[in-house]
Parts: sequence; structure tokens; C-alpha cells
Amino acid sequence: MAGQIGETVRRYVNLPTHSATLPFSDGVQVGNTLYLSGRIGIDPTTGAVPADLDHELKLLFDGCKAVLNQAGMTFDDLVSVQIFSSDLSLWDRFNTEYLKHFSKDRLPARAFLGSALLARGRFEIMGIAVKNGS
Amino acid sequence: MAGQIGETVRRYVNLPTHSATLPFSDGVQVGNTLYLSGRIGIDPTTGAVPADLDHELKLLFDGCKAVLNQAGMTFDDLVSVQIFSSDLSLWDRFNTEYLKHFSKDRLPARAFLGSALLARGRFEIMGIAVKNGS
Amino acid sequence: MAGQIGETVRRYVNLPTHSATLPFSDGVQVGNTLYLSGRIGIDPTTGAVPADLDHELKLLFDGCKAVLNQAGMTFDDLVSVQIFSSDLSLWDRFNTEYLKHFSKDRLPARAFLGSALLARGRFEIMGIAVKNGS
Repeated sequence: MAGQIGETVRRYVNLPTHSATLPFSDGVQVGNTLYLSGRIGIDPTTGAVPADLDHELKLLFDGCKAVLNQAGMTFDDLVSVQIFSSDLSLWDRFNTEYLKHFSKDRLPARAFLGSALLARGRFEIMGIAVKNGS
Repeated sequence: MAGQIGETVRRYVNLPTHSATLPFSDGVQVGNTLYLSGRIGIDPTTGAVPADLDHELKLLFDGCKAVLNQAGMTFDDLVSVQIFSSDLSLWDRFNTEYLKHFSKDRLPARAFLGSALLARGRFEIMGIAVKNGS
Repeated sequence: MAGQIGETVRRYVNLPTHSATLPFSDGVQVGNTLYLSGRIGIDPTTGAVPADLDHELKLLFDGCKAVLNQAGMTFDDLVSVQIFSSDLSLWDRFNTEYLKHFSKDRLPARAFLGSALLARGRFEIMGIAVKNGS
């Protein structure tokens, strides 16, 4: 539902797999800006991060894409991204997969930082997206 | 003081306990958006984080609330939150306290990340709030 | 080029030293807001962070300043800053340098967090700036 004139609409975005007991929303949209929660490559059917790195990366990017899509956006709408990783040596491997999701001239500002992560995730992605053309 | 038409008012927000020698403001408000500094559960009377976890958590959330209130906001106005923790095993304990401060349908986007923290803090909270209905 | 009425102009900002193979932009400007990439004090001529701390800090702040300037901004326009550091004991040393770049009454919201960093950086700065008076 649209807000009144001069009011910015706020919308809480959750994927169908989002558990109601989690202490966050998958994303919060305020006007044309979407704040995404930190995502890890968790398998919603098992609740765990797979041991296989390729599988984890696929789940990670699929999840990000799904949240963006819920707000009518794509990776190209991201303006700022933080990647927290438990293993900085995976930088190259991560980037190869990451770059597949963006147009070449639409790369967000970014940081790649070493952190301990929940659920044995090797990567956690958090970002801010702004709907382009808005 | 209000800015001119088309100008976004900027306001630096500091709690009464904020020391003028600190290299940051407790918050910066730009229009309807408030950027909060990372807060730890420091006791302003001792300048230290208490050993007792319950006490630390109370100080932490009281501090966040006070900064939000200075801008006429509450926890429900937060749209994005990062929690940095020196001990990921405290996730459940933290969440129990965290959830007391939010309406059930107003949970911000969030990440919970393992980091080394200043002053022996177990948690540091940083967030962005947008005044609802604005 | 200005966008149409009601459209927010988006601009990808890169320094002349930015390598086209990097998986990020140095900054992304959306309207009056500039999202800066995490920067470390890398020497663009060697591609490495110098062993000397003073040199690293100079490169770090010079780089931030250059990105801000590309968007017609200065440090005073920053509203939120995260500093990730591989060595929290450098807090004082960092702050001495940091404070030289800001007007006393224009300090951004800030967090200073312990993280493992790429390229042997001791500091990484990421921030959001909003053009003042806009």
C-alpha cells in the first residue's frame, strides 16, 4: 500500500524460507532503498552451510538474489556491499562467482573483511541496494 | 534549525555522557535518517565494560535507546543493524535481550559477526534508523 | 548528466589508479549520498601496503580524500565510518591522524572493529558521505 504524499513507504521483506523465530527480517525497504540482512550460504532444507564450497556459494548468491527480487531489484541495484569471510584466502574464488552477477559497469562499493561467522559460513554478504532509475 | 527548502538538515547527536575527546559523534542525523555509532555496553561512570553480562547488555541497549530517543526515534525505527561480537556463542543470550526492544513485525535487517572489540566489550551495535512515517 | 525529474542520478566513482580488474568501484554516488569502498593504505605504485605505519596512514587518508573529492566532497561530508583494524592497540595512533581530517564539530558516527584484513593492511576505512547543504 502506498503511503501518503511525502511519506516514505517501509516494507519488511522475507523469503518464503524465512523462519518466524529469526531475530531479523531478510531485508527492509524504505522508499527506493533496500537494506539486506547479512546472508550466509545456508541450505534452507537442512539449516546448515554445506561443506562443499561451490554449493555454499550457489546458496549464498541465490539467497541474495531472491531477497533483491522480492523488492523488484537485481544485483545491479546494489550500491554498497560488505563481505565478511572466515578465510581471506578464498578472495579469488569468491570474486569469480561474485562477478557473474553484475554488469561490468555496475560494480557496488565493497569491502572484504575477515570475521568469525555463525553456522560455519565461509562468507556473509550484507548490502544496500537502491532501485535504479528511481 | 530547519534548512532551506530542498536542503536536508544535518544534526550531530551526542548523549550527555559523551566525552568531547572521543573521535566520533554518537549519531549523525541527515533528514529522516540517523546513523548510529558503534556502541558497546560501557558504564559511563567507570568508563569500562562490566564483567557481568546482564549488566553489559543493559548498558548496551540503554545507550542505543538514548541515542535513538535524542533523534525522536525508537528501536522500531532501525532499518539495518550490525552486531559485532567477541563471542559468537552468546548469540542466543544476545537475541533474548535484543528482541525485547522491537515490535514483532518491525525487525531490522541484521548481521551478527565475530570481531575483536575495544574495551573488552562482548558486543558492539551499529545501525541505521529511518523515522517511520516520514 | 542529470537524470529526469524525480530520478536519482547514480555515478560510479573510480580513482585514476583504480584497476579495471578489481571487483568493486571505489565509490558509488546516488543523488547526494556517496558509498565508499573499504580502503586500505595500499601504495598504487607497488600494489602493497608499506611496512611503515606513517606511510600506510598517509596513503589511507589520501585515498579516502581522493574518492571524496571525485564526488565534490570532503571528510566533513562523511556521516558514518567503519574502521576495521588488524591491531586494536593502534587506536590512539589512528585517531591522531584521523582527527586531522575533520572539523571539530563534524565528526561522523563511527565504529572501530578488529578484523583480519587483505594485503596486510592494518586499517580499512569504509564510509557513507552525504553532501552537506544538499
